[in-house]
Amino acid sequence: MKKINEDQNRFNDGKKFDVIVDRLEKRGVTLLDIAKVTYDLQKKYVESLTMETCLDHIERVIMKREVQHAILTGIELDRLAEEGLISESLSTILLSDYGLYGIDEILALSIVNVYGSIGLTNFGFVDKTKPGIIGVLDNKKGESKNKCNTFIDDIVGAIAAAAASSIAHRYAETDEIIELYKK
Amino acid sequence: MKKINEDQNRFNDGKKFDVIVDRLEKRGVTLLDIAKVTYDLQKKYVESLTMETCLDHIERVIMKREVQHAILTGIELDRLAEEGLISESLSTILLSDYGLYGIDEILALSIVNVYGSIGLTNFGFVDKTKPGIIGVLDNKKGESKNKCNTFIDDIVGAIAAAAASSIAHRYAETDEIIELYKK
Amino acid sequence: MKKINEDQNRFNDGKKFDVIVDRLEKRGVTLLDIAKVTYDLQKKYVESLTMETCLDHIERVIMKREVQHAILTGIELDRLAEEGLISESLSTILLSDYGLYGIDEILALSIVNVYGSIGLTNFGFVDKTKPGIIGVLDNKKGESKNKCNTFIDDIVGAIAAAAASSIAHRYAETDEIIELYKK
Amino acid sequence: MKKINEDQNRFNDGKKFDVIVDRLEKRGVTLLDIAKVTYDLQKKYVESLTMETCLDHIERVIMKREVQHAILTGIELDRLAEEGLISESLSTILLSDYGLYGIDEILALSIVNVYGSIGLTNFGFVDKTKPGIIGVLDNKKGESKNKCNTFIDDIVGAIAAAAASSIAHRYAETDEIIELYKK
Repeated sequence: MKKINEDQNRFNDGKKFDVIVDRLEKRGVTLLDIAKVTYDLQKKYVESLTMETCLDHIERVIMKREVQHAILTGIELDRLAEEGLISESLSTILLSDYGLYGIDEILALSIVNVYGSIGLTNFGFVDKTKPGIIGVLDNKKGESKNKCNTFIDDIVGAIAAAAASSIAHRYAETDEIIELYKK
Repeated sequence: MKKINEDQNRFNDGKKFDVIVDRLEKRGVTLLDIAKVTYDLQKKYVESLTMETCLDHIERVIMKREVQHAILTGIELDRLAEEGLISESLSTILLSDYGLYGIDEILALSIVNVYGSIGLTNFGFVDKTKPGIIGVLDNKKGESKNKCNTFIDDIVGAIAAAAASSIAHRYAETDEIIELYKK
Repeated sequence: MKKINEDQNRFNDGKKFDVIVDRLEKRGVTLLDIAKVTYDLQKKYVESLTMETCLDHIERVIMKREVQHAILTGIELDRLAEEGLISESLSTILLSDYGLYGIDEILALSIVNVYGSIGLTNFGFVDKTKPGIIGVLDNKKGESKNKCNTFIDDIVGAIAAAAASSIAHRYAETDEIIELYKK
Repeated sequence: MKKINEDQNRFNDGKKFDVIVDRLEKRGVTLLDIAKVTYDLQKKYVESLTMETCLDHIERVIMKREVQHAILTGIELDRLAEEGLISESLSTILLSDYGLYGIDEILALSIVNVYGSIGLTNFGFVDKTKPGIIGVLDNKKGESKNKCNTFIDDIVGAIAAAAASSIAHRYAETDEIIELYKK
């Protein structure tokens, strides 16, 4: 295995990033939609928070390889279910968003974990309250028998929660931290 | 290693169970307090749900060894912080319930996972909205400099969420679930 | 929602169990193959361990709903990749068992967690050393361009590790454990 | 909450880093010890790998806040157990490194997860085979009744495994990736 050129690697990450953005859009989700969820989650903790900052952190989250793999896999399963290519009984489980199926939460957790366990709470909260785009995706589930948004809503909630964690880590108050971490 | 006598093992589990109940009560939490959180989480999904059933599932959760270990460890860290036995900087982190410290969520996750990933959402939701006893525990944090409820509130939320998952698994039957557990 | 008849539920679980066994066999894996991995993992800790006991615990693991969902999802992704139904770039990732793709480990973790975190070590160990059927599955990956065993080997390792944890929990008794399960 | 100055934040991270290195050394572990475990794990995958590179990635892992919190918490529990400050039955569990206690693995997992799930396998492998410093820490457990290395060996294994993942992500071969991620 030859050592990679890091600049090439970053360029390459840019290409992968575009693929992910494109896939999300094909499922009806823009980065701005996700950034709005993050903004609502973090606004009360960071007074100066802007949508630009939220969007920036959404992009950081999506640059992570682990996150990209979870997104690609979840979106693919939704698509395959819609196209009737999943065998039974998994097909019925996915198309009905069966409540005891937890693999969507498992994939979401692998996204949330990228910025540590503090994102768990935010993920659970948006997964339950379904703000903004998450509610839109959830409502689409009932539109037709062949619509499958089982994975995409958890994925979007997880990206929003991970970006909120990323912001929290970045904005951690200096004075407090100097206080906290002194020996 | 000789095979253990299973009856002894169960008796032993019963003894451990009593220890756990006692420790929770010393931190101001009864099983009934936790059962109320579970009841509010699951009532809308299971019409016939009673407090007795919730209490029964809380007890099942607390019979699990993994859960007992997470409870014992978290409660011990809260107590040690209150008694000034934790060294810095961890002491300040715990006594201030520092927002970027996520080990409490990590312990909670090991409780939630006992009944599978579907409990994640409920855990995140109660951790954010702080219903009932969880809010009471959270408010006590500010009462004095030496009060530490950093772990106990997440532990209680995790037990309530795990019991909700346990109820969901128990009440599941294919035909109904499609109707009732649609997410 | 009416309370379900528990006997019906168990019957239903039995039906699901048969489906899982059938799917595993179609991917070249019998429960006996997995039980052998568990036996080798636990024999040194439990002198009286038999293959029958291992097989019994493998069956308990596979009766768990969370485990069944992880198995169904992972096996489906392997099958879909082989049949050319997965879109790029995920298709190439799966068919090449790309080393930085970690969703197979994520699914495996959801199986291992069913009996608590003590299974993590055994899972990691068999995933690295590839004993018995796991090595057979791994070798098949290179056989042809269209063979995909990306998920099945991790799933098998996770079931074996979860069964080992299940056995450890069952054979535990305080006095002995201190002697025998010292890590 | 006022926005922090990022330069101050980084400076502050340097101070926290020194605290962690100091705590590890007080438990008998140097970063070089951990780097050797990482080197042995990754050497076969990255021909040009040097100890300097391994040490560099160990340092990156330890700069992460989630990792620092897991280290501080685990080391503190080992120390408190040794000093007789943990109440029963947790004290006996920790001092005997009770095999069914899995909270040490849970803390380790929160370290491993920082670089994604591909680290799981390496963690499990070193936790089982106990190479280098991990074996040394494990042997010390039996030295006296009051020695507690229940958390430190898992923590060291987790840091080594996370650094191995970090190296794998960094050295991922450009050409392969361009191939993999093209649409």
